[in-house]
This record gives sequence, structure tokens and C-alpha cells, in this order.
Amino acid sequence: MKGAIVYKPDSKDLAKEVAEFVNSNGFQAEIVEFDKDLERYDFIIVIGGDGTILRVLQSVKNCPPIFAVNTGRVGLLTHCEPHEYKSVLIEALSNFEVEEFMRLCCVVDDRELLALNEFAILCSTPAKLVEMNVYVDDVKVESLRCDGMLISTPVGSTAYALSTGGPIIDPYLNSILIVPVAPFKLGWKPWVVRDDRIVRLEFDRSVFIVADGQSKIEHEESVEIRKSNYPARFFRISDRLRKTVEKLKKIC
Amino acid sequence: MKGAIVYKPDSKDLAKEVAEFVNSNGFQAEIVEFDKDLERYDFIIVIGGDGTILRVLQSVKNCPPIFAVNTGRVGLLTHCEPHEYKSVLIEALSNFEVEEFMRLCCVVDDRELLALNEFAILCSTPAKLVEMNVYVDDVKVESLRCDGMLISTPVGSTAYALSTGGPIIDPYLNSILIVPVAPFKLGWKPWVVRDDRIVRLEFDRSVFIVADGQSKIEHEESVEIRKSNYPARFFRISDRLRKTVEKLKKIC
Amino acid sequence: MKGAIVYKPDSKDLAKEVAEFVNSNGFQAEIVEFDKDLERYDFIIVIGGDGTILRVLQSVKNCPPIFAVNTGRVGLLTHCEPHEYKSVLIEALSNFEVEEFMRLCCVVDDRELLALNEFAILCSTPAKLVEMNVYVDDVKVESLRCDGMLISTPVGSTAYALSTGGPIIDPYLNSILIVPVAPFKLGWKPWVVRDDRIVRLEFDRSVFIVADGQSKIEHEESVEIRKSNYPARFFRISDRLRKTVEKLKKIC
Amino acid sequence: MKGAIVYKPDSKDLAKEVAEFVNSNGFQAEIVEFDKDLERYDFIIVIGGDGTILRVLQSVKNCPPIFAVNTGRVGLLTHCEPHEYKSVLIEALSNFEVEEFMRLCCVVDDRELLALNEFAILCSTPAKLVEMNVYVDDVKVESLRCDGMLISTPVGSTAYALSTGGPIIDPYLNSILIVPVAPFKLGWKPWVVRDDRIVRLEFDRSVFIVADGQSKIEHEESVEIRKSNYPARFFRISDRLRKTVEKLKKIC
Repeated sequence: MKGAIVYKPDSKDLAKEVAEFVNSNGFQAEIVEFDKDLERYDFIIVIGGDGTILRVLQSVKNCPPIFAVNTGRVGLLTHCEPHEYKSVLIEALSNFEVEEFMRLCCVVDDRELLALNEFAILCSTPAKLVEMNVYVDDVKVESLRCDGMLISTPVGSTAYALSTGGPIIDPYLNSILIVPVAPFKLGWKPWVVRDDRIVRLEFDRSVFIVADGQSKIEHEESVEIRKSNYPARFFRISDRLRKTVEKLKKIC
Repeated sequence: MKGAIVYKPDSKDLAKEVAEFVNSNGFQAEIVEFDKDLERYDFIIVIGGDGTILRVLQSVKNCPPIFAVNTGRVGLLTHCEPHEYKSVLIEALSNFEVEEFMRLCCVVDDRELLALNEFAILCSTPAKLVEMNVYVDDVKVESLRCDGMLISTPVGSTAYALSTGGPIIDPYLNSILIVPVAPFKLGWKPWVVRDDRIVRLEFDRSVFIVADGQSKIEHEESVEIRKSNYPARFFRISDRLRKTVEKLKKIC
Repeated sequence: MKGAIVYKPDSKDLAKEVAEFVNSNGFQAEIVEFDKDLERYDFIIVIGGDGTILRVLQSVKNCPPIFAVNTGRVGLLTHCEPHEYKSVLIEALSNFEVEEFMRLCCVVDDRELLALNEFAILCSTPAKLVEMNVYVDDVKVESLRCDGMLISTPVGSTAYALSTGGPIIDPYLNSILIVPVAPFKLGWKPWVVRDDRIVRLEFDRSVFIVADGQSKIEHEESVEIRKSNYPARFFRISDRLRKTVEKLKKIC
Repeated sequence: MKGAIVYKPDSKDLAKEVAEFVNSNGFQAEIVEFDKDLERYDFIIVIGGDGTILRVLQSVKNCPPIFAVNTGRVGLLTHCEPHEYKSVLIEALSNFEVEEFMRLCCVVDDRELLALNEFAILCSTPAKLVEMNVYVDDVKVESLRCDGMLISTPVGSTAYALSTGGPIIDPYLNSILIVPVAPFKLGWKPWVVRDDRIVRLEFDRSVFIVADGQSKIEHEESVEIRKSNYPARFFRISDRLRKTVEKLKKIC
């Protein structure tokens, strides 16, 4: 069993320290580049913030379990802070308890995009409005002009969707959150629907489809987003709800 | 098989007409008072609006399936408008397809309250603030001063919770919505959690616990709300999502 | 020149201390009851929180300048905390710089109510909806069903109106803020209008008209609210904007 | 006295018709290009929507009074619909009553930008966050990470700011509205401040400064926005408040 260690540029020293620590405690892990084939490792240790984790996730379809040491800001997806990584990491690797979180997928021009947090469908011209129709299983639930639309997972409800008026969703509630970005409309609401629903968006001009703030494709006309068969995997965080609440206090 | 017909005061004539129609089309139903033992009927026909349905539901634990002809305003819970009741009602009674929607329960002073839409926990003095702590499975997710707190079902997301900043929730997504009423706090969010979570509220002064805007109990200190074992039953509305969207247009 | 000192019940000791301090520093002030004729004093020292100040204001039409030592929670209207009152109070009394803040008035059944923060027009039955039409200078700007409506001053924008989705308004911007309480409507907005506008509300059932959370009158049909000729007076707080921002951090 | 007629591309025929009508009714007006020196005309007739008017305004500092026939969608700034232009236009030109609405200005790299609706300060990378500090007369009123920030006029409160959670502001209330775009923060509020306040923004990465959705400049570090000495001028719309309310119904 062998792990990969990836790090965000400013966390190289900690990454080296963690590598040494892991290897001298009966586990095997090596520092690798982002573009390495990460799927062939048995686990991934990320030294970075949520952005670094999301970048890793863009490169893996079958996701090895991820453990993350937070060197970013809020670190909602991370397992511990740098000062406490030793005990938490050893426990995680020893128990090897894993939990899965749904990802969304979206096929554009024969390319399949995956997102753990959200797909942001954004007007490709800043400060211009795009007209959007939103369908849930072929029922048109919304029609408005806006800067964009977010299709988010429960985990993503504390990411971009938090900024646009979405509710906070229990990470263990299987569901999809739909919330517009800057809707030019008096009456609108976020929608929370079952995770087996298919969400289709129609738009009257060119948009960027942005997966987790990482990958970006320009597209026209319409797009379909649904639950992916390839979830993200993380080492289990017991008491995840409590930790989420604590971390949210950082963004009050 | 025998049905009960209940009506709101201004809909007596239509109730009589419906009774005659039902009985002359091979089904049995009689007009009854609200305080009659409605549980012993095989189905209930309501001539009224959402308020009338909610009043009926306060009196039944084991809920016979309900069919409702809308003589109120929005009628989100109803099956048809007065002009179209004949075909819709006959089809419903013939097929007898039933769907269940979760109710919430709350035990106060040995009395069990049930709610299809929501429990509103409201400060008993108007224009005064109550301090509330909200716990989800013992995790304190919110602490604030407010006019009150709503614990709502998905069906209730288009009722009182719509007025207080909650999202619209898929009626088929098993979940509980928590949203404050007039929170004196800059940073707060609605929460949507799994329906097997237990929600506990603590408050620093006397509150009214209001079930579906119908039953009201004054109470102090704390209360626990959870999914009830006694769901509400309705004759199936195929395409419920589409109909909800259409009805919401009435309250734009 | 003689001042009155009023205090909220739990602040009696501090009130005595302040009285002694004031009188031994060349000023005259006496502890009085709330129901005393406060208008005949040259200034009022309040030992309490915003609630205590608002209660004092209910009893004065021609308002002597108020100085307040905060023994409440947020104390947005107060001048200082208990530990610092000596220097701040002496400076205030010596300079005697006063600033006025608009109050709203509303005549109901030949009784004139005044409010520094807001008038809350609330359905007199909890958890029931009242239908409201809102007119600004005879233009109907809103029509909806709700728990109530707030007509607020800029100073009041950090009070009850903060809880119901209102913006924060510069205390020195002459304006009136209109914002519903729990509107059962998808599309609505707070309105900020010029302070010489007359706001009229129509309602389809009995309401409570609550002035600053202090005085309450039950009323029917309609009510008119406008700028009063009797402003509230406070000893000047230089840098009021900065202090407001700091105090708002207490309710994050 | 001579007027200019400008039109949006799809409204050329109506523009010709209006030109003929105006000139055969005792007034002088000629169809011109957008890049013509519009300031030297005595009035401007716009055949288009709000976007066309805003484009015209970008090219005039000393603004001749504008009359607009709506061939766009909502047309909040326009005077009439195509079917009714004859009587309304003749009356406007005969009476020549003009009203002024404040514009905001912002000097960037020695270039002065003007905006009738708003300045949008937007992160130049889509779906990335920019950290913003907002100062009002040197008081830091807000600090958050967001997609951007809007500094809007009262007239602009029914434009972009309507989409981002701002209130509706009386067009005759002299004030500046500050509201973030997609703030990644739990607790924030729109601010409405006096129109003589200076708003300064600091940002930690490159932004676009967009004036009325028309002119765009990339910029770094900070920017200052204040009331301009060059207001926009329009032929008077009596009962503007009522008409605004009616037009807002189009975007419910």
C-alpha cells in the first residue's frame, strides 16, 4: 500500500516533513506532482487548502481516499491543522475508515467534468446577463436572467453556493442544490432536490462551465448535470457536522 | 369503504354537491364535522384550502388518504380546482394510489403534537426577542436572538418557511429544514438536514409552539422535534413538482 | 441646569455611583423614576441598554439630550461602557454638543405614538398572515401577505429591521425604511424612501402597532406613518459610523 | 435647438419614423451614430432599452436631456413604449421639463469613468474570490472575500444591485448603495450611505471596474468612488415612483 503526497506551492517544507513522518511510522508515501497518475496510489495526502484538494480531485476519477492537512484559510474539506497532523494522520492511516461524498458530472463536447463542490455556469462576459431556464427532470422550475447558476452538492453548500444565498445542507443528505448567481428577478428561491434528479440548464448566450473553480470550458445552448458514479473519497471525519459548524465561524 | 367529507365554512354548497356526486358514482362518502372521529374513515375529501387540510390533519394520527378540492387561495396541498373536481376525484378514488409525506412530532407536557408543514417556535411576546440555541443530534449549529424558529418538512418549505428565507425543497427529499424567524444576527443560514436527525431547541423565555398554524401550546426551556411515525397520506398527485412550480407563481 | 438619571432594574448600583460622580464634578443630576416628567430636565443620563433608552423616549415628546452608559448587550444607542463612563460623560456634559435623530410618528385613535427605531405593524394572532398594502405618497409599492411590516428610521436599521432583511442605513441619511416581516411572497424587496414621504399601510385584519418594542396598540384597517416633528436628541458621538460598525460585530 | 436620435441596431425603422415625426411637428432632430459628439445637441432621443441609454451616457459628460422610447425589455429608464411615443414625446419636447439624476465617478489611470447605475468592481478571473475592504469616509465598514462589489446610485438600485440583495431606493433619495456580489461570508449587509460620502475599495488581486455594464478597465490595489459633478439629465417623468413599481412587475 502506497500513498501520494501532493502540496500547494507554499507548503513544500511541511510536505517533506509529513513524508518523512509517514515513512518512519510504518506507512509508505511519496511526494508527487499534480499531473502524476494519482489514481494508482492507495491514498493521497494533501498539504494545502480546499483549493488544493479540489485540484487533486480534478485529476482522479476513481478517487483514492484523501487525507488533508490544512495550510489554507478555512479548510472545510481538511482533516487537521499543521500542528496536530501526527496523531490524526496515524490514526486515519491505521483505521483506514473511508467515507464517500457524491460528485456531480457534466458531459461537454465529449469531455466529462466532475465536481465535488459545484458546477458554476457563468456568463462568459463579466457584468452581462444570461437568460437561463432550469429544468429538474424536465420540469421547468426557474427562468430568469442572471450572472450564472450554481449546481451544488451538499458538501458544496459551504463553498460558492454559500455566497449566493443557498442554505447549508447536511453533508450526509443526498441532494442537489440549485441556486442562481446574481439573479435579475424579484422572486426566486434556492432549490434543494433529490440526488437522482437530472438538472438541465438552457442559456441564450455563451457561458463558462466551471467545475469546482478549477476547470473551465466555454459552452453554448444547454448542459445537463447529474450525480456522478465516481464519488470523492476521504478518510472519515467523525463528528463532521460539529467541525463544519466550527469552521464556518471563521467566515462570519 | 366509506369516506368523510369536511369543508371550510364558506364551501358548504360545494361540499353537498361533491357528496351527491361521489355517492351517485359508486362510492360512499358522508359530510361530517371536524371533531368527528376521522380516523375511522377510509378516505377524507376536503373542500377548502391548505388551512382546512392542516386542521383535519391535527385530528388524525393514522391518517386516511386525503383528497382536496381547493376553495382557498394557493392550495399547494390540494388536488384540483372546483371546476375540474369530477374527473380528478373519480380517477383518484378508482385508482386509490396514495403517497405519504413525513410529519414532524414534538412531545410537550405529555401531549404529542404533529405537523405536516412546520413547527413554529415563537416568542410569546410580540416584538420581543427570544434567545435560541439549535442542536442537531447534539451539535449546536446555531445560537441567536430572534422572533422564533421554524422546523419544517420539505412540504412545508412552500409554507411559512418560504416567508423566512428558506429554500424550496423537493417534496420527495427526506429532510428537515431549520430556519429562524427574524434573526437579530448578521450571519445565519437556513439548514437542511437528514430526516433522521433530532432537532432540539433551547430558549431563554416562554414560547408558543405552533403546529401548522393550528394548535398552539405555551412552553419554556427546550423542546425536541423529530420525524413522526405517523405520516400524512394524500391521493397521489402525479407530476407534483410541476404543479408546485405552477402554484408558486400565484405568490410572486 | 439639572439632569435626570434613570436606570434599568439591574443597574441601580451603577446609577447611584454615576449620580455621585456627576454631582461631585460640578453638574447636577438626580435619580428619578421612569414615570417622572422627564421633559423638564435639561439632560437625561440612562444607565441601561437600548431598551431602556427606548423606554425613556416613549415618555418624552420634547426630548432632552440623552447620554447612555451601556449595561445591556449591544448598546447601539449608548455612549460608553461602564468602565469608561467618567471621562466620556464629563466631556459630553462640558461640551454639551447635541445631535438629533428623526423619530417617526403615527396617530392611532387620537393617540400619537413616536418611534426612534421603528413601528412594527404585526398581525395580532401569532403564526397567522395579514394581507398588507403599502403606499408611499399614495403609490402602492407593495402588496403581500406577511406576519407584519416594519417602518424604520436609519437608526432603526440596526434594530428590528436588521432581522428582517433590511440594509444598514447611514444614521445621517434622512430616509425611511420599509421592510416586511416574514412575507409569504417570492418577490419582495426592502424599500428606502425619502424622509418626507408618507407611508400608509392597509391591512385585512387586526394588528398590533408596536413603537420601538415598547408601546403597543391594537388597531384595524389602516395606519399612516410619517416623520415626526419631535426628534430624539443625544449627546454627540463623533465617529458614530465607526462605532456602529464595531458594535455590529457583536451580533455576527 | 436640435436633437440627436440614436438607436440600438434592431430599432432602425422606428428611429427613422420618430425622426420624421419629430421634424414634421416643429422640432429638429437628426439620426446620428453613437460616436458622434452628442454633447453639442440640445437633447437626445434614444430608441432602445436601458442598455442603449447607458451606452449614450458613457459618451457624454455634460449630458443633454434624454428621452427614450423603449424597444428593450424592462426599460426602467425609458419614457414610453413604441405605441405611445407620439403624444408623450411631443409633450416632453414642448414642456422641456428636465430632471437630474446623480452619477458616480471614479478616476482610474487618469481616466474618469462615470456611471448612472453602478460601478461593478469584479474579480477579473471568473469563479475566483477577491478579498475586499470597503471604506466609507475612511471607516472600514466591510471586509470580505467575494466575486465583487457594487457601488450603486438610487436609480441603479433597480439594476445590477437588485440582483445582489440590495434594497430598492427612492430615485429621489440622495444616497449611495454598497452591496457585495456573491460574498463568501455568513454575515454581511447592503449599506446605504449619504451621497457626499466617499467610498474606497481595496482589493488583493486584479479587478475589472465596470461602469454601467458598458466600459471596463482592469485595475489593481484600490479605487475611490464618489458623486460626480456631471449628473445624467432626463425629460421629467411625473409619477416616476409609480412607473418604477409597474415596471418592476415585469421582473417578478
